[in-house]
Amino acid sequence: MGKSCINVGILGWGTVGTGVSKILVNQHALIAKNSGTELRLKKIVKRTLPATREGVELPVDCLTTNPVEVIDDPDIDIVVELIGGVTEAHSLIRRALQNGKHVVTANKALLAEHGGELFQLASEHQVSLNFEASAAGGIPIIKTLQESFAGNQIHSLYGIVNGTCNYILTEMHECSVDFSDVLKVAQDLGYAEADPTLDVEGIDAAQKLILLIALAYRSSISLSQLYVEGITNITQKEIQYARELGYVIKLLAIAKLTDGNRVEARVHPTLVPERSLLANVGGAFNAVCVIGDAVGPTLFYGQGAGEMPTASAVVADIIDAAKSAQQGVSTPISQAWLAGAQAEVDICSIDDIETRYYIRFVVADRPGVLAKIGTILGNWHISIASVIQKDPHGMETVSLVMLTHTAREKNMKAALTEIYTLEEVKEEAQLIRIEEGVDF
Amino acid sequence: MGKSCINVGILGWGTVGTGVSKILVNQHALIAKNSGTELRLKKIVKRTLPATREGVELPVDCLTTNPVEVIDDPDIDIVVELIGGVTEAHSLIRRALQNGKHVVTANKALLAEHGGELFQLASEHQVSLNFEASAAGGIPIIKTLQESFAGNQIHSLYGIVNGTCNYILTEMHECSVDFSDVLKVAQDLGYAEADPTLDVEGIDAAQKLILLIALAYRSSISLSQLYVEGITNITQKEIQYARELGYVIKLLAIAKLTDGNRVEARVHPTLVPERSLLANVGGAFNAVCVIGDAVGPTLFYGQGAGEMPTASAVVADIIDAAKSAQQGVSTPISQAWLAGAQAEVDICSIDDIETRYYIRFVVADRPGVLAKIGTILGNWHISIASVIQKDPHGMETVSLVMLTHTAREKNMKAALTEIYTLEEVKEEAQLIRIEEGVDF
Repeated sequence: MGKSCINVGILGWGTVGTGVSKILVNQHALIAKNSGTELRLKKIVKRTLPATREGVELPVDCLTTNPVEVIDDPDIDIVVELIGGVTEAHSLIRRALQNGKHVVTANKALLAEHGGELFQLASEHQVSLNFEASAAGGIPIIKTLQESFAGNQIHSLYGIVNGTCNYILTEMHECSVDFSDVLKVAQDLGYAEADPTLDVEGIDAAQKLILLIALAYRSSISLSQLYVEGITNITQKEIQYARELGYVIKLLAIAKLTDGNRVEARVHPTLVPERSLLANVGGAFNAVCVIGDAVGPTLFYGQGAGEMPTASAVVADIIDAAKSAQQGVSTPISQAWLAGAQAEVDICSIDDIETRYYIRFVVADRPGVLAKIGTILGNWHISIASVIQKDPHGMETVSLVMLTHTAREKNMKAALTEIYTLEEVKEEAQLIRIEEGVDF
Repeated sequence: MGKSCINVGILGWGTVGTGVSKILVNQHALIAKNSGTELRLKKIVKRTLPATREGVELPVDCLTTNPVEVIDDPDIDIVVELIGGVTEAHSLIRRALQNGKHVVTANKALLAEHGGELFQLASEHQVSLNFEASAAGGIPIIKTLQESFAGNQIHSLYGIVNGTCNYILTEMHECSVDFSDVLKVAQDLGYAEADPTLDVEGIDAAQKLILLIALAYRSSISLSQLYVEGITNITQKEIQYARELGYVIKLLAIAKLTDGNRVEARVHPTLVPERSLLANVGGAFNAVCVIGDAVGPTLFYGQGAGEMPTASAVVADIIDAAKSAQQGVSTPISQAWLAGAQAEVDICSIDDIETRYYIRFVVADRPGVLAKIGTILGNWHISIASVIQKDPHGMETVSLVMLTHTAREKNMKAALTEIYTLEEVKEEAQLIRIEEGVDF
């Protein structure tokens, strides 16, 4: 069975790196018992020294400022990249793979951009490149898609994969506060970054969706192929009307196999039925629904970020890599990830999707407006399922809220353009897509 | 990398066997793409021939009545045992392992009884013994505990792992029908067996809990060490009072690490908060909550039984076994499973657990009864959190419902024995344990 003790080097001793070092050092015996694998934390690279972290006592001489002491050390079997960012992480991982090290990373941005090339390199050097922590933190969704559901055609996948957005939307639902006020609180609590753009604009969720689609549909796609819409335009009005209609608003990352072997791939705020499990995923938690042809509907729930949940996933990857190192084999890598691989499915343009919509118009309180809007929608084959219009109590404008039946996005856009020419329509409508498929 | 094509033989062509054959035959290309593994279904053993199944066209000469044609065939790499029962399955699996075959089984009863011996045998012959489908069907909870959470100390685990019971309880909640009436419907629909004892008495859930505990706590325990209580005594009154108090009744399989390295292990009807995710797991679905020290609270949800969900898990095991066969290595087996392994934790007696309780007494409608019962409970250090007693409207007896604060089971039993001596107490109380730990 080869080596009895596997040496691990970690690049980066920030939040997640600290969590990983705590588990490797403090739970050394537990890991050996659970996995039959003896792991030794040999080196951690941190840019500035000296440094200590509460809750973990590192071995002597463990810390260094020089990444080469990890990636070029012939004794080190597994390199764990936790520095984040793209450029430096990219070149360090390349060199580690070229040196025949198994690599574990939590770097979704890097994989979303350079996954193909790095998996190709891992394959050439017959080493593993594991990345469980790069999507949905402690939830083992990567392994589940890659291994447990390998006999399934994946029909669809719905993820709450950004804890910041879910925290903000949950607070907006439960405390009736506005987006900007919750964002401030989230920043104070450390749930949101000082610059929250990547989170609240949906980019982070989109990067994770790219990884999930690569596994579910064996297709390597780029950020520009996804439709991405964040939560910054969601107001209390939307939250309240949604509730009145029996829905909750969640930022979902969605992938769906359509007829003709095309995949819908999109990230946007979504109305989900209030009794569905996804609607009840609150706070900073993550959840991913996967619907497979054999397994049927499934849901995976847990913490998607944070020191210890993310470290839990990184350590699982390290243990898997250690087994590969011991047995002298590599984890088989899905062909789709390799550079130059032919995508198996096409990505649907957002114009071609068909879905139900929530629309809120702000219109002048005059007779005939509903009829005019209804006529235009009807001309574009968009059928209205329900309408709420409340007494304006003397206000000059009024919210006109509609749920439509299933319609094509292209038609919806054309209809809206026409509706905006009506002088009674006072501002751009709020348009939110609805998913009923998650109602189990 | 050894053999390019891995031969599979299946023992049993019942419901799950049919599902597995459908996936292996119809999704042959998908599996090859997803896993890089070429699987060939060589033989299926069925007791009586000829036989056909809708939805799958077997290769020529695939069917046989003789199990030896599978377990002794030197060409066959993986044996899939799906005949169920203990005696015959036991001897066939023994012989397959001795012949150096990797084995996949969904047989929880067999593993709960003979797991230690069979894992020992697999270890000696350096082959895998995979069993994902033996607990919670399509939900990959075995792999998650064994691999994804290998760096975690498991604090607790709460499972809805019997679909029949969950279907019955869900119907009792939603349609206000009695246990016996729902059971009849469940039998007609095929959700319950003609003899439903194993399901409704909690035995099936207990067998699954034995497997989960073996993985979570590296301890091989027997059915007699578990406290097991089924759902046959749950009445509409309990369902309705529970709802009034903000709870839903679920049959839970529970394992909890307590101070002093002991594990509570029990299966019984349980009140869970109505807004918790577990409370919202409806119908025949399964769900398992796992709370780990690093990963925190997690939940896994899906179909726990049925042809295709179970087949999905079996096929995932076959693919894992195929990788082992190709690479000439075996899946490392947790030491706890091996025959004669020292249990790492002790199982707590039910008398020693501490929990909150729902109690419904049926008492004579006379003054002073509540005081008498309250005094006895108080003497046994059991404190009452809330009480419901409704106007008896002229009836001679009345239900007196209490929720207690946390109390020790031993004390509760002693208190009840004393309470039963009161002449105002007309029948045995309904006692249901409460779990708040699942409220996330």
